Amino acid sequence: MTDTKTPLSEMRERIDSIDRQIQQLISERANHAQTVAKVKGAGLSAIDYYRPEREAHVLRMVVDRNKGPLSDTEMVRLFREIMSSCLAQEDPLKIGFLGPEGTFSEQAVRKHFGHAAYGLPLGSIEEVFQEVAAGHADFGVVPVENSGQGMIQVTLDMFLTSEATICGEVELRVHQCLHSQAGKLEDVKRVYAHAQSLQQCKTWLRINLPGVECVAVGSNAEAARLARHADDAAAIAGETAGKVYGLRTVAQGIEDRADNTTRFLVIGRSLFPPSGNDRTSLLITVNDKPGALYDVLSPFARHGISLNRIESRPAHTGKWQYAFFIDVSGHVEGDALRAAVHDIGESAATIRVLGSYPVALP
Amino acid sequence: MTDTKTPLSEMRERIDSIDRQIQQLISERANHAQTVAKVKGAGLSAIDYYRPEREAHVLRMVVDRNKGPLSDTEMVRLFREIMSSCLAQEDPLKIGFLGPEGTFSEQAVRKHFGHAAYGLPLGSIEEVFQEVAAGHADFGVVPVENSGQGMIQVTLDMFLTSEATICGEVELRVHQCLHSQAGKLEDVKRVYAHAQSLQQCKTWLRINLPGVECVAVGSNAEAARLARHADDAAAIAGETAGKVYGLRTVAQGIEDRADNTTRFLVIGRSLFPPSGNDRTSLLITVNDKPGALYDVLSPFARHGISLNRIESRPAHTGKWQYAFFIDVSGHVEGDALRAAVHDIGESAATIRVLGSYPVALP
Repeated sequence: MTDTKTPLSEMRERIDSIDRQIQQLISERANHAQTVAKVKGAGLSAIDYYRPEREAHVLRMVVDRNKGPLSDTEMVRLFREIMSSCLAQEDPLKIGFLGPEGTFSEQAVRKHFGHAAYGLPLGSIEEVFQEVAAGHADFGVVPVENSGQGMIQVTLDMFLTSEATICGEVELRVHQCLHSQAGKLEDVKRVYAHAQSLQQCKTWLRINLPGVECVAVGSNAEAARLARHADDAAAIAGETAGKVYGLRTVAQGIEDRADNTTRFLVIGRSLFPPSGNDRTSLLITVNDKPGALYDVLSPFARHGISLNRIESRPAHTGKWQYAFFIDVSGHVEGDALRAAVHDIGESAATIRVLGSYPVALP
Repeated sequence: MTDTKTPLSEMRERIDSIDRQIQQLISERANHAQTVAKVKGAGLSAIDYYRPEREAHVLRMVVDRNKGPLSDTEMVRLFREIMSSCLAQEDPLKIGFLGPEGTFSEQAVRKHFGHAAYGLPLGSIEEVFQEVAAGHADFGVVPVENSGQGMIQVTLDMFLTSEATICGEVELRVHQCLHSQAGKLEDVKRVYAHAQSLQQCKTWLRINLPGVECVAVGSNAEAARLARHADDAAAIAGETAGKVYGLRTVAQGIEDRADNTTRFLVIGRSLFPPSGNDRTSLLITVNDKPGALYDVLSPFARHGISLNRIESRPAHTGKWQYAFFIDVSGHVEGDALRAAVHDIGESAATIRVLGSYPVALP
């Protein structure tokens, strides 16, 4: 460390000056957040200021403006954290999720709410719904769909019996790879992975490694560790895990569905206004008669609304036979969707707007 | 959402303008970091650019400048994340720690390295040392001291047989509270807590709740959940956990040592220059003869150096009898400490500088 001006020390001075400005701006932002809080009234918690549609709008502007060198994901992450800190000046948001800590669900909580929110690890998906309903948690984060294995039924069924609304969605992408010490497929006599990962990759394994022993272990990280100490074993794990454990990648994207994404819903107790790029989830029940589903779906086509997903479930009451979970593009306050919902109401037994919420960010 | 100018929409416009500036500055900062990388040469990883003394210096300036409203801890956290993202433009740092994910050790990793570094959960403290030595991890984070229960011997002993250096320290503070549904001490017939928390609070429990049943459960979060569903039970957990689970606090700061801090060391393979506020860890072995310890310690007094900690361990070789782990204020490149180390070298069997590293930030 010398005091003469080297290119490095000049660079550091410039970075110091940037940091000074960033800090001042963050403080100013936090001050504005406090002022907003004062305008709204004293004695309130973060839940009273939290506006998911506003956050989504802010983050979309961040993505639009981003010219690098940081990736959109990293830049969005930093702004999530800044907003999370500003919001947590009041009593921080309490977010229920399927525990324990360190799970995929907690990653989804942190991706969506940042690290200044309180995480509330709970014992089951049911408990997440209960805690939100009882007001012990402000929001809950529950898995709803794995692109490899379809919808998570227990989550859908909870909407049949609870008043929960949907306030957001979070997507986590995982690409599975096969890693080994040697990096050669022909040496692999044994594959370690978490049971779910083995399941997600079973077609690839059957075709490319027929008859090879598959060993289910506690996590993919553990699988990578085991593979590192063996000549004849490989592990299924994400790209990162392979890099982290110093293994060579034998094959990439080996999951049976190429886009292995887990989708989570943010559940709450109220509905929020449009953010500008929204999705709406509807729960529609119909009486079992010919053409019932057609009657339900045709208004969407008529009003030019895209269907994203449809899933039918047996409804748990005698009044009707089927419940449909339908995701469509747009916000229920938009004219087209409002009209479609009205039309469906004419023929369906019941229709409930579970929520209109911002489409997941990167 | 109206388009007429309300105080709220004006405020949002101002926040948007602040965000635009913050984003531009973060991008500029990331560009500078890339330029520094190019100056140093192509094909290098984050480990080649990571300068703990520089980071500590930057973060100390952040604390000095901070005038609120965000706390020092929150502001430091945001800058850690910004630096973490900038650094991770090259191959991110790989940090080994005692797994699984979600433990206290992982919290220490994230507090020190941010969320853009790769975490490498490992099976034991020994394994963390091995992975760092082998270069599979760039750094490791290991617990070394719990203020309630003293030094963690397995960590100290690893320094006797490994070449690891100390590159930083991280402190996590936990204040234990007793929480219950009713908030009254006299109603408590049962206390749930993690075994370690029961241990940390045993004096308080003996005096204030003699004869009450203590039940060890998997985590303090689980304890809080159990207490919430019982009239006659309480849970030991942090302040946050009590709030999160909607319990009332019966008593605060019930740990036997009021300042319940876990201290972690960041271990690596090299030594780093001074940051301006440093601590030095020394490993000194002495032959078993009268006055040996006095001979070792007197040079510190003579050169005006403060001792922070001293811990003796039986050395695992026949050549000498005792090993002392000694933490002192200052950096080994400083004149006073350099002179003291030189003087100790005259009388001790061996002296090794484990590391000089920035004092832990808030």
